[in-house]
Amino acid sequence: MNYGIVIKVLGIILLIESLLMSPAIFISQQHGGEAVRAFLLTIAVMLVIGLIMMNVKSRKDQIRAKDGIVIVALGWLMISIFGALPLYLTESVPHYVDALFEIISGFTTTGSSVIADVESLDKGILFWRSMTHWIGGMGILVFTLALLPALGVGSLQIFKAESPGPVAGKIVPRMKDTARVLYITYIAITLIELVFLLFGGVNLIDSFVITFGTVGTGGFGPRNDSLASYSSYVHIVTGIFMVLSGVNFSLYFLVFRKKYKDFLEDRELRLYLFFIFSAVVMIAVNLLMTFKGDVFISIRDSFFQVASIMTTTGFSTVDYEQWPSFSKLILFFLMFIGGSAGSTAGGMKVIRIMIILKLIKREVSKIFHPRALIPIKVGGKIVSNEVIARINSFLALHLVIFVIGVLVVSLEGVDMISSISSVAATINNIGPGFGSVGPTMTFADYSIFTKLFLSLVMLLGRLEHFTIIALLVPKTWTRES
Amino acid sequence: MNYGIVIKVLGIILLIESLLMSPAIFISQQHGGEAVRAFLLTIAVMLVIGLIMMNVKSRKDQIRAKDGIVIVALGWLMISIFGALPLYLTESVPHYVDALFEIISGFTTTGSSVIADVESLDKGILFWRSMTHWIGGMGILVFTLALLPALGVGSLQIFKAESPGPVAGKIVPRMKDTARVLYITYIAITLIELVFLLFGGVNLIDSFVITFGTVGTGGFGPRNDSLASYSSYVHIVTGIFMVLSGVNFSLYFLVFRKKYKDFLEDRELRLYLFFIFSAVVMIAVNLLMTFKGDVFISIRDSFFQVASIMTTTGFSTVDYEQWPSFSKLILFFLMFIGGSAGSTAGGMKVIRIMIILKLIKREVSKIFHPRALIPIKVGGKIVSNEVIARINSFLALHLVIFVIGVLVVSLEGVDMISSISSVAATINNIGPGFGSVGPTMTFADYSIFTKLFLSLVMLLGRLEHFTIIALLVPKTWTRES
Repeated sequence: MNYGIVIKVLGIILLIESLLMSPAIFISQQHGGEAVRAFLLTIAVMLVIGLIMMNVKSRKDQIRAKDGIVIVALGWLMISIFGALPLYLTESVPHYVDALFEIISGFTTTGSSVIADVESLDKGILFWRSMTHWIGGMGILVFTLALLPALGVGSLQIFKAESPGPVAGKIVPRMKDTARVLYITYIAITLIELVFLLFGGVNLIDSFVITFGTVGTGGFGPRNDSLASYSSYVHIVTGIFMVLSGVNFSLYFLVFRKKYKDFLEDRELRLYLFFIFSAVVMIAVNLLMTFKGDVFISIRDSFFQVASIMTTTGFSTVDYEQWPSFSKLILFFLMFIGGSAGSTAGGMKVIRIMIILKLIKREVSKIFHPRALIPIKVGGKIVSNEVIARINSFLALHLVIFVIGVLVVSLEGVDMISSISSVAATINNIGPGFGSVGPTMTFADYSIFTKLFLSLVMLLGRLEHFTIIALLVPKTWTRES
Repeated sequence: MNYGIVIKVLGIILLIESLLMSPAIFISQQHGGEAVRAFLLTIAVMLVIGLIMMNVKSRKDQIRAKDGIVIVALGWLMISIFGALPLYLTESVPHYVDALFEIISGFTTTGSSVIADVESLDKGILFWRSMTHWIGGMGILVFTLALLPALGVGSLQIFKAESPGPVAGKIVPRMKDTARVLYITYIAITLIELVFLLFGGVNLIDSFVITFGTVGTGGFGPRNDSLASYSSYVHIVTGIFMVLSGVNFSLYFLVFRKKYKDFLEDRELRLYLFFIFSAVVMIAVNLLMTFKGDVFISIRDSFFQVASIMTTTGFSTVDYEQWPSFSKLILFFLMFIGGSAGSTAGGMKVIRIMIILKLIKREVSKIFHPRALIPIKVGGKIVSNEVIARINSFLALHLVIFVIGVLVVSLEGVDMISSISSVAATINNIGPGFGSVGPTMTFADYSIFTKLFLSLVMLLGRLEHFTIIALLVPKTWTRES
């Protein structure tokens, strides 16, 4: 590993974070100013450490695959460690581990919280807490679709699994341009949702908080009841923007270039929308038959919650814990499917599920033609055996980590569903789960150990496991090669 | 398809079933004789229909791959339909669908029951109900390891997935010899357990019932509390024999030939024993810490329950529903692992889990060598990409059917854990689950629709999905090719 360049780049990331944290100072100042000193102190610390790190000498300026992986993994950890300081210094959360959990949950766009009373938070803290979603969402987009392929074939190989379909690379071939397209799209969607929410009468801070949570598919809400007490208009707008944020952002480039047909024919997009549509219909019917309520409200609630869980956002407008098992289990399984590759959403990703379903279909058709060679195609292009092997390994690893996670959390003494959904909600970067971590609950009651463990689970899920696991391979830390 | 030969073979299977049913007549006669008429009537019907079917003319006597699949799938259904008659005719269960559920549960060696008071059953009925486990277990062994490979390359290809390791085929190359070795081993293990139980003071009928349930990894018990009220001796003997029955039966041939080293070095056997050992230790410690009970009792109960669930038998000696979440979740995940390939156990099978773990390991080592070609080996032999693809597809299909199953069962209105574990317990051929289908409960309260659905799930799990799914492919039913 090239230690010099790694420290240098981490220093730059820290300086960028301090810059991104500064707007929160002004927001805090305008609303009582309780957190101004905490933010200033944190930013000062970040500036000093960042500048020192940036000036570390490196023998070579070349970033190799190995360095890239370490930068990503340590980078996420580092920005969380510093990002948690304002929450801790203002005593918004009693323990530093709680603050760390909250901010890792923020950056990983999970949205699992230890804070029950978010309405009493300093507005600057509330803003920063949600802004981590936005930064984290952007980070994933830029890292996985733009910056990392440029780090060499090695990391391209790894991060190709993130968007294994034929889509990544369809757009601008040059890395810098890709990054620019992505953040322009991201900022554009952010601004449009912001305008829609302001238009709907939501105040400026709350509009920002909801938008950050939506576009980053994070899910920290501005109120104690998440979004429940907002109007139907806000629910529908947020629902639609969650769906938009779960789409592969590369696809929006096709829209800009007026290639609407290519956009609409994208296989992952179609399956993604099909899953959402089917789930909304099934849950709406189930709710109507169970509660004999209003058709509009059933569809609205079903749509919002399906969009929220499928895109791994985690906002809630109702206590879905009260829904019948059928509806709850649909939400539970959607947690694992997640959004599209190349979006800010977590989970296993629709394209992987699609390829797995194609593998099953192939095996069925091979019952009578055991020696036939049938290639797996997505949108007319053959998916290589290498990519298929990587997808299978990813899914298996996801499940293995899930199983280990559930057993660890169960030692807390909570019931089975709470153990299972605590890990499902964090590994898939959703936020709330069921039982003791349901939509009206928080993760506050877990022990420090479990909070740290679930923070790791969130990072594993967010970086799709292999990047974090690479840190455990001794070879990563050797100086040469 | 060759309809003639299919009907002919099904007729022979029916005649064999009528033969296997006859001992139950004498047992019933010696204990009140309530069920004698029901058995005689059923056997008469089977003889008539079986003889008619056997004499159907077929153009060719050759059994091709397609015919083999249909014979297996329809054969299991047919023996269940007739096997359920004595239960229904004696009114041991009120509805025919209940009787069918019970007997499909028997033949598939699942052990899920709709009968709460088994102690009031006619002894002949009790004997037959458990004997279906023994027949089903034998059926799976003979079908998958001996008869089916002989049906041609096609079915060999399919059923190779059943025992994808290097073991199948290691033993006697000729089919008839393999079958003979298998049933000699099976009968030997049956007799030895029977002797051990009789020696422990268990009466003859109960010894048979327990042995059938153990060796077939079925789990129908002789008492209302399953095996709870038997002695520690019985618990330990049964536990050990369950473990023995979850081993690939081909391996026992190595023991006969005194190749002990080869036996002990079998990779699947080692991982199977490792899983059991780890689970027993973790649960025993968890029980000790929770209940502050006796060390011996904690280990005994932990060992028995782990052996019972891992081998997909489903006997219980304690109400594990009262155990802490950690222990319950270990049992829950063991349900999916299941026993070894080539045993009477269900579940995903240890060898498949082993290969999946190897795939994950390979992907981790490929982080820094993305273009390396690393073959997957089991016991020194390379596993072909074809077999790996089949294993991945099987596991994915298992999970897809599990998800669909859980959603269907949840429409019953039971809680999430009950829905989840009802399907986990049937698709993996365990028997009891958690919640409303826990070890002290039955499946009796489910609707007729759900019972039929879960019967299908048991068959899918038992025949590893593809055989049943082949029935849905129109091509299966065309006359030629």
